[in-house]
Amino acid sequence: MLSTHRAFYDAVETGDVDLMSSLWVDDVHTSCVHPGAEPLRGTDAVLRSWTLLMANVGYIQFFLTDVEVNTMPPGAEEPDTAVVTCTENILSGEGVESVDAFSGGKAVCTSILVRDRSSGPWKFWSRHASPVIDIDPEAPEEP
Amino acid sequence: MLSTHRAFYDAVETGDVDLMSSLWVDDVHTSCVHPGAEPLRGTDAVLRSWTLLMANVGYIQFFLTDVEVNTMPPGAEEPDTAVVTCTENILSGEGVESVDAFSGGKAVCTSILVRDRSSGPWKFWSRHASPVIDIDPEAPEEP
Repeated sequence: MLSTHRAFYDAVETGDVDLMSSLWVDDVHTSCVHPGAEPLRGTDAVLRSWTLLMANVGYIQFFLTDVEVNTMPPGAEEPDTAVVTCTENILSGEGVESVDAFSGGKAVCTSILVRDRSSGPWKFWSRHASPVIDIDPEAPEEP
Repeated sequence: MLSTHRAFYDAVETGDVDLMSSLWVDDVHTSCVHPGAEPLRGTDAVLRSWTLLMANVGYIQFFLTDVEVNTMPPGAEEPDTAVVTCTENILSGEGVESVDAFSGGKAVCTSILVRDRSSGPWKFWSRHASPVIDIDPEAPEEP
């Protein structure tokens, strides 16, 4: 399923709306959370938001770190669900501020991919991205 | 699986570390993203963060809205994976600022729950919460 995950970023980087459409399960219950935003529900709304973002971002590139893949349920021999978590280090050009909270340059993302049968293509069911704010949650409390 | 989802918030609200521990799959690959933070990986790290939060938050209460449950893969008769999305409207007391980004009062959350067998208890595999920032991503660009 990592090829689907990588294709997602290729689609954003190249502004390929058709590729993006092909990567999502077509369902009214799919969901996508952009950094700092409320959830979008249903593939129509999700794809509309990506089309808008791709139309407004002149240049964007993602460098993924800490990519981790786990299939669900853990240990299944022919999994049909996968959870991919990663950190997105984002390099972007002009026009970014107007579309979404991508200006922070770093986000963490949890994606859920599914496939119909063990041989079918993996597709996105859900994507939840959030900004990384420069705080240390385990820092000792100030007196 | 909604009873597990509700029990999670009960555990935070009442500071019940044992209940919280019982709700997570014990695995080094589980993950938890607190609002604005980098991912925590592994149940030990996840539970440590919740124990710390519960020890430092005097009063906290969650009002959930827009709760939506989907089992994976879509349409499975005996699902072993579920995705729960919701908005957390958070009412909290003193001491909150020092622990995490809960001060915003509103977060959106995607949780992934799994169970070993069709009759086993649902447990948390992943939780990704993010702050809701008061912007409208579909607002027209300023001239």
